[in-house]
Amino acid sequence: MTLLEKTIAAIQPLDAAGMEAAKGRISSLAKPRGSLGVLEDIAVKLAGIHGKIPYIGGKVVIIIAGDHGVAEEGVSAYPQDFTIKMVDTFLKGGAAVNVLARHAGAEIVVVDMGVKGSLGNHASLRHSKIKFGTDNMLFKPAMTREEAVRAVECGIEAAREEMEKGAGILALGEMGIGNTTPSTAILASLAGVPVEGVVGRGTGIDGEILEGKCRIINTAIEKHSPDPRDPLDVLAKVGGLEIAGLVGVILGSAAKRTPVIMDGFISGAAAMLAAALRPECRDYIFPSHLSMEPGHGVMLDWLGLKPIIHMDMCLGEGTGAVLALHIIEAAVKIFNEMATLDELSTCKDPGC
Amino acid sequence: MTLLEKTIAAIQPLDAAGMEAAKGRISSLAKPRGSLGVLEDIAVKLAGIHGKIPYIGGKVVIIIAGDHGVAEEGVSAYPQDFTIKMVDTFLKGGAAVNVLARHAGAEIVVVDMGVKGSLGNHASLRHSKIKFGTDNMLFKPAMTREEAVRAVECGIEAAREEMEKGAGILALGEMGIGNTTPSTAILASLAGVPVEGVVGRGTGIDGEILEGKCRIINTAIEKHSPDPRDPLDVLAKVGGLEIAGLVGVILGSAAKRTPVIMDGFISGAAAMLAAALRPECRDYIFPSHLSMEPGHGVMLDWLGLKPIIHMDMCLGEGTGAVLALHIIEAAVKIFNEMATLDELSTCKDPGC
Repeated sequence: MTLLEKTIAAIQPLDAAGMEAAKGRISSLAKPRGSLGVLEDIAVKLAGIHGKIPYIGGKVVIIIAGDHGVAEEGVSAYPQDFTIKMVDTFLKGGAAVNVLARHAGAEIVVVDMGVKGSLGNHASLRHSKIKFGTDNMLFKPAMTREEAVRAVECGIEAAREEMEKGAGILALGEMGIGNTTPSTAILASLAGVPVEGVVGRGTGIDGEILEGKCRIINTAIEKHSPDPRDPLDVLAKVGGLEIAGLVGVILGSAAKRTPVIMDGFISGAAAMLAAALRPECRDYIFPSHLSMEPGHGVMLDWLGLKPIIHMDMCLGEGTGAVLALHIIEAAVKIFNEMATLDELSTCKDPGC
Repeated sequence: MTLLEKTIAAIQPLDAAGMEAAKGRISSLAKPRGSLGVLEDIAVKLAGIHGKIPYIGGKVVIIIAGDHGVAEEGVSAYPQDFTIKMVDTFLKGGAAVNVLARHAGAEIVVVDMGVKGSLGNHASLRHSKIKFGTDNMLFKPAMTREEAVRAVECGIEAAREEMEKGAGILALGEMGIGNTTPSTAILASLAGVPVEGVVGRGTGIDGEILEGKCRIINTAIEKHSPDPRDPLDVLAKVGGLEIAGLVGVILGSAAKRTPVIMDGFISGAAAMLAAALRPECRDYIFPSHLSMEPGHGVMLDWLGLKPIIHMDMCLGEGTGAVLALHIIEAAVKIFNEMATLDELSTCKDPGC
């Protein structure tokens, strides 16, 4: 079996007994039943992942970067070299995701899966370049199937290495100018929805450019006929290298019973592909925010996940996922630190 | 002028120049314009509050506790002595809000504004008891107008003292068995909506008990005719002591240009009363979560505030407000720590 096949086969359902035990503990806590809502659900899901009391462990954001041939069609408000500039900014610590990761006490690892340009060495940079950006899907498939599989496997390896170093939860981040275009194509292909209903403004395009983006996605899907029953075919033909890497991170984490936090529209496309390859991996994915991209809600519905943060964000990088880390940790602390109803004092001298 | 009158008169609009300067800084940051959504709005609002670059300062949760005469009608799933038991639990550190406050790095102050029972001394407890619970509003007004004003002024003083000790942001919390009943009455009175459309399950009641709660609220409103143009009349007749205290905390914070974070349904009723007394105080209120109580969304709409956390919570205590602290701090850090577009490197050796 290949690494990808072995990883997919290793993904198991949640531990039902662990979840039942967690529900029992939660119903004993000093609060009305169910009154902490999704905080309770998060603790139960973590208990199902770990098969015992929920915990977090090391917090790591894996940001995968890759360029897109289709960017030459002008589908983004930014020139392609912003991908490498932002990778540089991640490594220097000045991007939004760096600020939020420091705030959440999380480390950042950047993976070059296909940036158009050469990157030097850096302690936080992992070299996994498959090629210098995908091909322009308007004319040919973005990748070969072999390239797509290699990128997924590099994502699996990145996740595995971080888990071996102590990561207990992984937040998904990405960078790639133009990458809402392949993500929309993946969504339309897998969910069978019209591109017109889910295409969005990405970094801020509108009018004719938005119409052009929609036309390009439709043309690429028509030309390459990605097969929705074959997620790797969809990924190769209309996907992206960083999206493939994120698919690998999700599968690799789920295979090792480790939670991953989905970010916005790009990581949502990766989550759809991962779920199409192995539906059980959804049990290991925690949603974070609801993006401004109109297709994001469609993705979340398709995945059966409900976002917890509604802040009209659409930056990517992992910014929404990292914000959710605090809330997921809060759920663990609620589970482990709260008094039970039985412990409520009956004494007349409060604080005693 | 009384303390309440002076406080109301001191509340001023946001600083427009400070907000414009903040918008300028945010548009220079290394990200697409508007892509951090509400995180950007939070930073701008804080700049408008402080008239300069946003900051946070000390984080304090003020939990105000009080009992309700109407609880004897069986409007809650819990007996009335849970109020004092939970106050005891707050002081011992075992309640949900304690866990979340520690997680957020916030301190807790508990104010006894009207618990039915005597409380000893504790470093985190403030004694401001007006009386041993409100009167049963099914038969008589919950308080006299004088009691209501005194409770509001005690809230103003509690906020002032915390700000003097270094609090830069206050999260609103409360405890009082039965207090969704007066909160619903306040909402219905001020917004002019039918009780039937906004009454909720509180700590978990349903069926006949829920119908009874609805009938009791309607009867109390009919009997006392609270005047929606006179918020203190509404507060006195169908309100609560802890709700009055929260009104004071909101007004006191706004008067000193200090942000307050609204929690769920009870603090929402207090925010409505504060806004009815002085509309400008809404500029100092940050919404946090959207509660499961069906009337909470109506309150937020009425206030013109949009919740950021959607987690089906309905515990109160300040649990939602405290969860939002991390996000509000994140907005400040984004503003102060992110690289600007001009700073993006053009060098070919990222990380250099």
